[in-house]
Amino acid sequence: MHDIVLAHNETKGRAFLNQLSGKTPLFACVIGVTETAKIPGISAAGKYPELTDYTPPADVELLLLGKCRCIAGVPVTPEGIPTPALITMSALRLANIPALVVSGGLKINPHVPFLDLGGESGRDVRTGKAVDNAGEVMWRAKIAAENLSKTVDYLVIGESIPGGTTTALGALLAMGIDAKGKVSSSMPGNPHGLKIRTVEDGLKASNVGFGVLANDPLKAISCVGDPMMPAFAGLILGAADKVPVVMAGGTQMGAVLSVVKAINPNVLDNVAIGTTRWIMIDKTADLKGIITQIADVPILAADLDFSQSRFEGLRAYEAGMVKEGVGAGGAAIAAMAKSEGSITKDTLLVEIESNYERLVRSK
Amino acid sequence: MHDIVLAHNETKGRAFLNQLSGKTPLFACVIGVTETAKIPGISAAGKYPELTDYTPPADVELLLLGKCRCIAGVPVTPEGIPTPALITMSALRLANIPALVVSGGLKINPHVPFLDLGGESGRDVRTGKAVDNAGEVMWRAKIAAENLSKTVDYLVIGESIPGGTTTALGALLAMGIDAKGKVSSSMPGNPHGLKIRTVEDGLKASNVGFGVLANDPLKAISCVGDPMMPAFAGLILGAADKVPVVMAGGTQMGAVLSVVKAINPNVLDNVAIGTTRWIMIDKTADLKGIITQIADVPILAADLDFSQSRFEGLRAYEAGMVKEGVGAGGAAIAAMAKSEGSITKDTLLVEIESNYERLVRSK
Repeated sequence: MHDIVLAHNETKGRAFLNQLSGKTPLFACVIGVTETAKIPGISAAGKYPELTDYTPPADVELLLLGKCRCIAGVPVTPEGIPTPALITMSALRLANIPALVVSGGLKINPHVPFLDLGGESGRDVRTGKAVDNAGEVMWRAKIAAENLSKTVDYLVIGESIPGGTTTALGALLAMGIDAKGKVSSSMPGNPHGLKIRTVEDGLKASNVGFGVLANDPLKAISCVGDPMMPAFAGLILGAADKVPVVMAGGTQMGAVLSVVKAINPNVLDNVAIGTTRWIMIDKTADLKGIITQIADVPILAADLDFSQSRFEGLRAYEAGMVKEGVGAGGAAIAAMAKSEGSITKDTLLVEIESNYERLVRSK
Repeated sequence: MHDIVLAHNETKGRAFLNQLSGKTPLFACVIGVTETAKIPGISAAGKYPELTDYTPPADVELLLLGKCRCIAGVPVTPEGIPTPALITMSALRLANIPALVVSGGLKINPHVPFLDLGGESGRDVRTGKAVDNAGEVMWRAKIAAENLSKTVDYLVIGESIPGGTTTALGALLAMGIDAKGKVSSSMPGNPHGLKIRTVEDGLKASNVGFGVLANDPLKAISCVGDPMMPAFAGLILGAADKVPVVMAGGTQMGAVLSVVKAINPNVLDNVAIGTTRWIMIDKTADLKGIITQIADVPILAADLDFSQSRFEGLRAYEAGMVKEGVGAGGAAIAAMAKSEGSITKDTLLVEIESNYERLVRSK
């Protein structure tokens, strides 16, 4: 399928992709919110920082319903660029792929069904006490995935958590992965300095040095991570010994991968990262540089191209806005794989533009 | 499969059962609680009426984990007879059938993952305002089932809600089904008089006469039903146009069937009731008499027989205690069908006794 790029670890990537061909996955979207996202300048996943509590529930409403319920319109960046959930939703609809919402910890519940794991929203990472009950949430996610993986061909797992690359940086540093200057951003100007300062405050507050928690990933999450991480990792741990799992996301997948590796490295053989071309060409970040420090997993990238879009809000993706999120890249890959190539980047763009027109432009 | 009885509508039942052979279902367990269950003498689903809030979460913990977390031991009747979840859990484990917990409305959340539909626990049916947001809960359940049914061969849906036969009587009468003296009970002496008085208080309080709400099932639930009903009905409405659905339960299935019929009778062709032999031979109730007033659906019954069990607590089922619940009959049928008959009532009893010994006797 020429619209999926084997972006890293080509041989394994091709073999992984072959397994998915013609199969129907379950797309699980793990959502969470944190106070970290409300630090000015950290997150673009909402028009204002205070709105970030609404972005993940609105994203998953869009996935399941084709429209949001808890907000008017769809989530946008401060510049008005629409959520990548628009890509995910379009891919899932085109390919008739089912979705399940999983909460890691929220302030506002989505107005759609969601799997509750008993998690709570995350604190400001600068407290050094970012997440409560990470172990329990991970364990419950594992139980759920053990059950669900008995009925599905494979899993695609995406996430929506504003400020997630900052907390990813925190967890990665605590687990000894050199990720400074390497995590991505939904903003074109990646605020690395602010992210590093924020996370270093958290590491100091929890008295955790670089790499000290390499073998205690739950503590890394608890101190300087976020509530998406234990839920996402638990789903992989419960499913990947039985079915392939696509980790649909950008540099945040590094933090989740590092957690999974520390707990059960055996499942890593059945895992690939699925992302977008925009993440791979991002000069302000280095997904490959993070992943290769952790495990020998393939990276697949949906070769999405919005440069010829009719809509400025979509062309902005080519200028480095948003890039990825809500499992957009992995959902696009799954749609292409399920359709055995009859869904292409072009048919996907037509669907995305049609949904954009209905949801964004008509406002 | 000679350990499944075609108890009603034999031709349709045989055709339905043939579809299930060798297939893997998802077992969904819908749970809820009400204040109705705390009326003395109404429910035996708990050692004391106050404990009924813990019974459904404990039941589903048993299903997913093989043991309870929110209570010590397992739920028992006032006489110490163990929950039918013991049967369900044994059947699911033997046949490697996955389970998903769905909350209609609870006071105590289970310590396992569960699907949240935004529902709340039910009031005392005598208020005539038994359930809030029935329409929203049903709609969310439908969304969830539309998604899940894309990945499963078929669905088996069970329930655990103490006092559920009383609220079933309420909803049935409001929808015009003559169910007085016909609903079952987990007690050997079925307290029909108390149930009828309780429900008539509720019908009076909500100013609803017999059959007045035949075409308004959501109002019937809201006035004199329970929070399990909209969740259960929504799952059927979302799934049964795509995959077969086994309604796993006793006379409460009448109330759910009546709701589904009023909303979308087209899906009834893809539905069967799966119950236990103990329900079919119950002289204090009349499942067939309820169902035949509603729809032409088959009734399948697992031919369970505990008369030769080593344990008094299991032999009590033969004396009319408990009889059904937590989808025990439907789960047993699904286990037999998945194994194409290699799981029998005898192998099932061995597994049930082994779990009984571990969980009940060792206390």
